[in-house]
Amino acid sequence: MIRTRKMWEMTWPEVKQAVDNDMGIMLPIGSIEQHGYHLPLCTDSLIPTRLCLDMAEETNMIVAPPVMYATNSRPQSGGGQSFPGTTSIGGITFINELEDIIREFMRHGFQKITLFNWHMENSNFMYEAAWLATDKGTNKDVKILIMETPFDSFDKATMDFLYPDGFPGWGVEHAAMFETAILLYIAPELVLMDRAMDDGPEKKAFYDKLPIEPQFTTKSGSLWKATLATKEKGERIWQELKKTLIPILKEEL
Amino acid sequence: MIRTRKMWEMTWPEVKQAVDNDMGIMLPIGSIEQHGYHLPLCTDSLIPTRLCLDMAEETNMIVAPPVMYATNSRPQSGGGQSFPGTTSIGGITFINELEDIIREFMRHGFQKITLFNWHMENSNFMYEAAWLATDKGTNKDVKILIMETPFDSFDKATMDFLYPDGFPGWGVEHAAMFETAILLYIAPELVLMDRAMDDGPEKKAFYDKLPIEPQFTTKSGSLWKATLATKEKGERIWQELKKTLIPILKEEL
Amino acid sequence: MIRTRKMWEMTWPEVKQAVDNDMGIMLPIGSIEQHGYHLPLCTDSLIPTRLCLDMAEETNMIVAPPVMYATNSRPQSGGGQSFPGTTSIGGITFINELEDIIREFMRHGFQKITLFNWHMENSNFMYEAAWLATDKGTNKDVKILIMETPFDSFDKATMDFLYPDGFPGWGVEHAAMFETAILLYIAPELVLMDRAMDDGPEKKAFYDKLPIEPQFTTKSGSLWKATLATKEKGERIWQELKKTLIPILKEEL
Amino acid sequence: MIRTRKMWEMTWPEVKQAVDNDMGIMLPIGSIEQHGYHLPLCTDSLIPTRLCLDMAEETNMIVAPPVMYATNSRPQSGGGQSFPGTTSIGGITFINELEDIIREFMRHGFQKITLFNWHMENSNFMYEAAWLATDKGTNKDVKILIMETPFDSFDKATMDFLYPDGFPGWGVEHAAMFETAILLYIAPELVLMDRAMDDGPEKKAFYDKLPIEPQFTTKSGSLWKATLATKEKGERIWQELKKTLIPILKEEL
Amino acid sequence: MIRTRKMWEMTWPEVKQAVDNDMGIMLPIGSIEQHGYHLPLCTDSLIPTRLCLDMAEETNMIVAPPVMYATNSRPQSGGGQSFPGTTSIGGITFINELEDIIREFMRHGFQKITLFNWHMENSNFMYEAAWLATDKGTNKDVKILIMETPFDSFDKATMDFLYPDGFPGWGVEHAAMFETAILLYIAPELVLMDRAMDDGPEKKAFYDKLPIEPQFTTKSGSLWKATLATKEKGERIWQELKKTLIPILKEEL
Amino acid sequence: MIRTRKMWEMTWPEVKQAVDNDMGIMLPIGSIEQHGYHLPLCTDSLIPTRLCLDMAEETNMIVAPPVMYATNSRPQSGGGQSFPGTTSIGGITFINELEDIIREFMRHGFQKITLFNWHMENSNFMYEAAWLATDKGTNKDVKILIMETPFDSFDKATMDFLYPDGFPGWGVEHAAMFETAILLYIAPELVLMDRAMDDGPEKKAFYDKLPIEPQFTTKSGSLWKATLATKEKGERIWQELKKTLIPILKEEL
Repeated sequence: MIRTRKMWEMTWPEVKQAVDNDMGIMLPIGSIEQHGYHLPLCTDSLIPTRLCLDMAEETNMIVAPPVMYATNSRPQSGGGQSFPGTTSIGGITFINELEDIIREFMRHGFQKITLFNWHMENSNFMYEAAWLATDKGTNKDVKILIMETPFDSFDKATMDFLYPDGFPGWGVEHAAMFETAILLYIAPELVLMDRAMDDGPEKKAFYDKLPIEPQFTTKSGSLWKATLATKEKGERIWQELKKTLIPILKEEL
Repeated sequence: MIRTRKMWEMTWPEVKQAVDNDMGIMLPIGSIEQHGYHLPLCTDSLIPTRLCLDMAEETNMIVAPPVMYATNSRPQSGGGQSFPGTTSIGGITFINELEDIIREFMRHGFQKITLFNWHMENSNFMYEAAWLATDKGTNKDVKILIMETPFDSFDKATMDFLYPDGFPGWGVEHAAMFETAILLYIAPELVLMDRAMDDGPEKKAFYDKLPIEPQFTTKSGSLWKATLATKEKGERIWQELKKTLIPILKEEL
Repeated sequence: MIRTRKMWEMTWPEVKQAVDNDMGIMLPIGSIEQHGYHLPLCTDSLIPTRLCLDMAEETNMIVAPPVMYATNSRPQSGGGQSFPGTTSIGGITFINELEDIIREFMRHGFQKITLFNWHMENSNFMYEAAWLATDKGTNKDVKILIMETPFDSFDKATMDFLYPDGFPGWGVEHAAMFETAILLYIAPELVLMDRAMDDGPEKKAFYDKLPIEPQFTTKSGSLWKATLATKEKGERIWQELKKTLIPILKEEL
Repeated sequence: MIRTRKMWEMTWPEVKQAVDNDMGIMLPIGSIEQHGYHLPLCTDSLIPTRLCLDMAEETNMIVAPPVMYATNSRPQSGGGQSFPGTTSIGGITFINELEDIIREFMRHGFQKITLFNWHMENSNFMYEAAWLATDKGTNKDVKILIMETPFDSFDKATMDFLYPDGFPGWGVEHAAMFETAILLYIAPELVLMDRAMDDGPEKKAFYDKLPIEPQFTTKSGSLWKATLATKEKGERIWQELKKTLIPILKEEL
Repeated sequence: MIRTRKMWEMTWPEVKQAVDNDMGIMLPIGSIEQHGYHLPLCTDSLIPTRLCLDMAEETNMIVAPPVMYATNSRPQSGGGQSFPGTTSIGGITFINELEDIIREFMRHGFQKITLFNWHMENSNFMYEAAWLATDKGTNKDVKILIMETPFDSFDKATMDFLYPDGFPGWGVEHAAMFETAILLYIAPELVLMDRAMDDGPEKKAFYDKLPIEPQFTTKSGSLWKATLATKEKGERIWQELKKTLIPILKEEL
Repeated sequence: MIRTRKMWEMTWPEVKQAVDNDMGIMLPIGSIEQHGYHLPLCTDSLIPTRLCLDMAEETNMIVAPPVMYATNSRPQSGGGQSFPGTTSIGGITFINELEDIIREFMRHGFQKITLFNWHMENSNFMYEAAWLATDKGTNKDVKILIMETPFDSFDKATMDFLYPDGFPGWGVEHAAMFETAILLYIAPELVLMDRAMDDGPEKKAFYDKLPIEPQFTTKSGSLWKATLATKEKGERIWQELKKTLIPILKEEL
């Protein structure tokens, strides 16, 4: 029995007890990043935090305080760094911070660590931090799952339910249907649905360009259709995510 | 009119509006650090976050997401880094992170920034970050208040109310009466009052020693008497803090 | 008229002339990384270098010396860092190095820069370097294309030609059909085709795990079927790449 | 018997002998910082160096060359970084330098190290360096005393002697009575007593502000009354410091 | 038997075989730096790479990909950093990169490593990297030769042959007779001999000055007489270098 | 008229006056490094400090506190890092520290800066620091002389006087005749002449090797004959150095 899964609300003896009971620890990693006219800056941080908390009981893990200040937004995945509100730290500092946090978890005695991310720009930086924290992969006393993306794909039925009119690709699902639907399910009080936009960049590309050109981003910050979101879709996504992730966490750690 | 003072729950146009309305921004800075048998690890982060939120309206500021992962705990101010649960980042990384965040606030257009800290070990590192972020003090487009400690002293009446049996010095007020009282007032659900201890180090000194020796810290992690805390004292402290801080924020920024 | 497109074989007045003639500069970025039993360690560096050289005339650019020492290999995209021969530098150092090189190009006077990468693990680190080199995107005197991946997708006819028995996904195309075919076309003398393997990891996942587990990588280092490669496929790929990239380079810069 | 306590005037075999004889080593840490119209820039470096030398015999220690270039001056403790002459290094570099020096002492074989500081702004940075140099407190082969402040308090008789008209608080004792008196005692040739000022900031606060505002600092650089200094007070301070410190050094190391 | 000495053209099992056969590894280190009107930017990288390859068989070593982006050019040894084309990275980044590469060689299992440099400005930085990579000289499992300069002196007969009209000192042999002759021998196709200049700085000094003053460098970038170069001199130099270096490599490693 | 040339003994208004009078500033840079059985660890720091002070009047400069903790000793120039007493900081930290100090001099208003070094291992690191401090050579408001070596050569008469039995090369003049003679002249009280040794490495080379092999260094730490030193030779050296340096300082700054 454990009083709470939120590490930050635990006392230190409770953390010790979690370690003694061979529990694992999940670190939610997100961003403070513009999410259109209608979603809060913390969207990328809120989703992984809630998801980790929602999976903690079943996977026998606790959840560390989320890393909210994270890497720079890129135009085609997050709208780019030019929106007011988007508050990022450099990639080098992010690596250093994550490495320190992982090493602290190891000092506490945790042997099962999951880095759970929702901000695509954090990819590779997270792996680098875990690589360094495990002494370039030579420390065998710990297992670290690096989940830079929360899933691989959904089944056809789910996709049909979510995208009855066709799937636009994950690339544009920033502050659009997917994230809006999740927030309508987990935190409807934070969604200004009446300001939700169907938007999209004038131009998409497999490359990026600096300085940022307006055509690669959008006016609202949403990269696709936010108005298609419903609470039902959010619930479906949430269930699918848990269905995917819980067995992995159980098996791998 | 502003919908919320929590920057992380704002949309980016709301942040822009805050900037356009000449609002300031407060950054709560704390720690994830042991706070005895009875207080949560987030104590140092929760207090400044709540206090900033509580002062935001009156000072015309918004509140950024707190920096919870911060500098190493020291034996005589926080019990030291050997407790499980205490989760810190190196001082260098902390400086770099703060500098980046401050520069982001400046990019958004904020001209009034307050760094509000509750974790004594962050002192000097915070000033260094602000020094760097203002290009070694030469950037005159912004005003930054660096509040490494939240107050100077309380008046005699308050001290008599808080410490009827004598004041032990601020140095030992870690996870003891002061912080416990505050949490009983602002977040009683997070206090395990039945586990609160009256504790104290065997030895106190004006210097530190490494490796950490047990005599300079305590078994529980509380550095003085936690059982003396009451909700009433917490409320009094809270009012005093606000009475001290609000006029400063108004005057200086 | 320009004597050579290889910057490293130019004299400095020739570089000056290139700048004066408003030429751009391409930086090939790769790795020194295991590529199975049959491909050389320089595969990731050779391909972008040759491709850049092959496009230089038509796009009016010159080609800088390739960055061959790059970021750590990951198990599911490059087999991971445990193979002898794979020689990487840390992500932080990689960012710093790229930033310096880009700033040098800017000092020379180049206003059109392309970072052209073939080693997937370099993604995001490259963007970060470009972000820093442009003073966080505020330097408007230069245009930088950050091509972390060399293409988005091929048309159906091409895919059918390349993968008549079905496409396994780009994720496993490391030291497999795709890269082997390219090398058979551009550098057949470097391919030990008789040692080529059809291999694949026992387990694939959308996440990574440290320390590296054998099931996520392969014995040979190839992640799919190398024996399906032919010179003809390599030629087709090469033409498709050029067909994709040349118009982009012309239009964007 | 030892020829000299100044490490810098020793030969290497003499250092080896000191190690073999189980001597400790003291590192004086100060600053090059404005000290008003009448005291030299090296005041903060001279005092700890002389004090360490004066205690070396009795504590069986030698004294390393002082670290004179140290962290940035802050307005309310040193007048701030805007005076010509104040010559500082960044806090990050200071941490790195101290860590290296401590590790060198450990390589020599010293098992008793004292970091003895007189420049308040160095606090916390010093502890961080020692923390890192001891591999985050896990190296048990050495004992390090981190003396960021040279004393806790003086007894009443001493205070009455030093401050017959009342004690203004340690916070303003920069280039004022205290330091002037010490220099009159240990290095009168460096004191321009005829230029000594009674000065003080227009405004004092428990927080700092950037960019630096004149009201928080002073014109002369002295933060209180320098004219109250006498050689006798300096001698009394010196004896009190030694009376406090020598027993600590003997007991702790 | 070994198929190739170029590590970058090897497969990973071939690198493993090299390690198993107790071969050593040479890392050529150069620059991308102006070399006058007539020599390519890669001169400093090409020479050590070819020399290493030419000595590999006899010394039982393989050759790693050259480090071409290296430290800043200085006015009196390379003409200075103001020529377009000279493309350098900072000294700190260079140290970090070399340390990483050396550590990778050690991970592969190599126990004999030679850092072979041709760009004088890399001196001391290279040693620092090797010092760090061997854990400050304490790692005894590897032998590293740090060859910052490729020779000490030539015999009189050679000097008379190379400099019949007198030796100007090695200091000015940048893009002059020495390097031109070598390239005429090893890569004549890269020499624009008709543009070769006899040049030299107006002023020579044992110190440097910043910002760079024109009198300490030259218009062409050559620091002495390039027209004196012949292929025969290049061949003689090449033989002398090999005669000097091969016995050292055999004896020391 | 100036009271003292020692910056550290100046008050801040005196530094300001020096700036206002267009004086320059010299930074002595040395080491804390073994210097045989008979010379103090501070030899490399003492010599440049005294020399700068001795030239200050005539060149209209002041002298900053010496940088004594500097880069790692190398076997063939300083005996190497394995002697107890040698106390160094990493090259990266050294660069960062020097950059900061130079920038502070520039902030004070100094337009003429000389970095004057006596520890050969500091070479190139010093230039890098100056390069960075001048914003990669683009800051034209200051002139910096980087004197990594204090002279080029002496005339024949001087050499005959100093080395009547032949000159062994500057490379071995560590803790040998040259430095011993200087100290006999400027600080005879610091020389333990009865312990002076004639020593030398078993083996000399133009390359270095790690880990350090005893044959490349010496037992005493002196690299040549210390017993040949006399006060008269020291005086001659001192006069020659001043004769060389003063005109340069006057002309260049």
